[in-house]
Amino acid sequence: MKRVGLKDVAAEAGVSVTTVSHILNNVQGKRINAETRRLVLEVAEHLGYQPNDLARGLRLRRSNTVGFVSDEIATTPHAGQIIRGAQEAAAQNGLMLLMLNTGNDRDLEDKEIALLLRHQVDGVLYASMYHRVVEVPQRLASVPTVLLDARSDDPAVPSVVPDEEQGGRTATRELLAHGHRRIGFVNNIDDIPASRGRLAGYRGELAEAGIDFDPSLVVTEDSVAAGGYRGSRTLLGLDDPPTALFCFNDRMAMGAYRAASEAGLAIPADLSVIGFDNQELISENLFPALTTVALPHYEMGARAIFHLQQVIDRAEPLGAAVHEVLHCPLISRDSVARPRT
Amino acid sequence: MKRVGLKDVAAEAGVSVTTVSHILNNVQGKRINAETRRLVLEVAEHLGYQPNDLARGLRLRRSNTVGFVSDEIATTPHAGQIIRGAQEAAAQNGLMLLMLNTGNDRDLEDKEIALLLRHQVDGVLYASMYHRVVEVPQRLASVPTVLLDARSDDPAVPSVVPDEEQGGRTATRELLAHGHRRIGFVNNIDDIPASRGRLAGYRGELAEAGIDFDPSLVVTEDSVAAGGYRGSRTLLGLDDPPTALFCFNDRMAMGAYRAASEAGLAIPADLSVIGFDNQELISENLFPALTTVALPHYEMGARAIFHLQQVIDRAEPLGAAVHEVLHCPLISRDSVARPRT
Repeated sequence: MKRVGLKDVAAEAGVSVTTVSHILNNVQGKRINAETRRLVLEVAEHLGYQPNDLARGLRLRRSNTVGFVSDEIATTPHAGQIIRGAQEAAAQNGLMLLMLNTGNDRDLEDKEIALLLRHQVDGVLYASMYHRVVEVPQRLASVPTVLLDARSDDPAVPSVVPDEEQGGRTATRELLAHGHRRIGFVNNIDDIPASRGRLAGYRGELAEAGIDFDPSLVVTEDSVAAGGYRGSRTLLGLDDPPTALFCFNDRMAMGAYRAASEAGLAIPADLSVIGFDNQELISENLFPALTTVALPHYEMGARAIFHLQQVIDRAEPLGAAVHEVLHCPLISRDSVARPRT
Repeated sequence: MKRVGLKDVAAEAGVSVTTVSHILNNVQGKRINAETRRLVLEVAEHLGYQPNDLARGLRLRRSNTVGFVSDEIATTPHAGQIIRGAQEAAAQNGLMLLMLNTGNDRDLEDKEIALLLRHQVDGVLYASMYHRVVEVPQRLASVPTVLLDARSDDPAVPSVVPDEEQGGRTATRELLAHGHRRIGFVNNIDDIPASRGRLAGYRGELAEAGIDFDPSLVVTEDSVAAGGYRGSRTLLGLDDPPTALFCFNDRMAMGAYRAASEAGLAIPADLSVIGFDNQELISENLFPALTTVALPHYEMGARAIFHLQQVIDRAEPLGAAVHEVLHCPLISRDSVARPRT
């Protein structure tokens, strides 16, 4: 299992290690006999020599690795797409991701980031598994850093987040386009950018359609199926119930399906439902399949690497950091139709 | 943002780079003045010097990184737990994970693994996102490798997989323990270790309970909600229908819920349902919450790192490789009860 080194190639080819190094590292300005070059390359190929990126990184002061630090990667099925987006973009730049999960433990995070820095990462993606405002760890001040699905109070740190308000508009517009006028919104009770932004989008789109905002049509609950069920029951129990429900996320929409079923309402004939997040495990497996708005996880991962590479290449802190807001697309399935008249 | 190096410490402390190196790298057998040592350590601390693990790795022929190569990390919400298990175990061994996702593209995989090897990883976890038999890439022959949620035809490669048969037994036993005698099995139509093993567990447990195997109680369908719905309808339409359904996975159980609802059967009063996988997004959000059998993803990740570390420490290929089979525990929720009499 021993790795083949320059020494082994030199011994086999009968030339000096320096010569082998000049040839295999493509050092410019060295006079090397063409026959020797051919021989060394042949021997290196034959022995299975692999260049050592650690050594190269030391010379160039680049490790070609990027730290991917996340709070709670494991609790969300979104993680895979964020990582995949970051990884594929990183690979295109010749970078590899070093993964760290901190479990929201600041002491652990501090120790792990110290370890990352010892590995000489060229930069760090600091990812939150849902869109929120984070405090960037002190230690990251010394290395290019981009926030992923998170923002900092410090505007100097670049960030990539989803456009929650546009997503809320998109969901509401889809229901309006099918002719709904009384649209309920089953929102998340947590005061986070997603709940604020999606509500703003819902209100903005109603206003544009000339529909007065009716606060009785908005309920807030825990962002799980049981919360969606409770919120939907409340709205469906109104004297003048909505004909369509916009649910904060797909889990809450799952609860809306149960509430509709208990009320004897068929989806979408009697009640239209639209979700958010596009958690395919739910949205594809519900019946009827759920129309929803997707969080652009793959794109967020990819764009964060793009911005990080920009900062690394510039090798200076940015004057004005980039804060990119990504579009949340509509995913049409089978849960939205025209209301009964 | 410039990193502080030995040179900077030496200049600030007014001593030679060699002396600083001896002190900061704890080189043994060098006579160094206690006052000088104190000064250098103070200056290093003051300037924020971080040891360079790249340089250290070069000296020790260890990079303290492990490659995590997976086929399709993104398509399964299990990914997070596998990665978290591997990562936390790695951190305990002072190792970090370099992530690679190959998207089941052999050419891409080959190129990416070559890149990993250039980064001088100490070993590789080769992970499948569901339990299957894989062909280990040729390039990995030169580096310690452990298969995660996968087996190879080559018995020399250590592996960690879930105990599918025991999981099937556990699910069946839970239904038997509640008094069910006619238990339907809605299996996956794909011929993979999970479908074979879970069926073997189902049959074995029935046999132990003295119940004859009735092939009409086993159906095979696509392993999604729509398949679970079709299979459950078939079984519930029998002249002597089962009182309980064991579903191959939680997605199929989601379809069983729909079939039960359409047939006017309440879960668990009229029909007990048990799933497999413990995909919490489904199992916790279904109503009633789904009793299921968990795949030990976190543990698989952690144990794979444990075995990899053993192989790395031994620095020789194993005579007889370890193939660990991990227990799949029951997760009791609300979908199993005694049958109506």
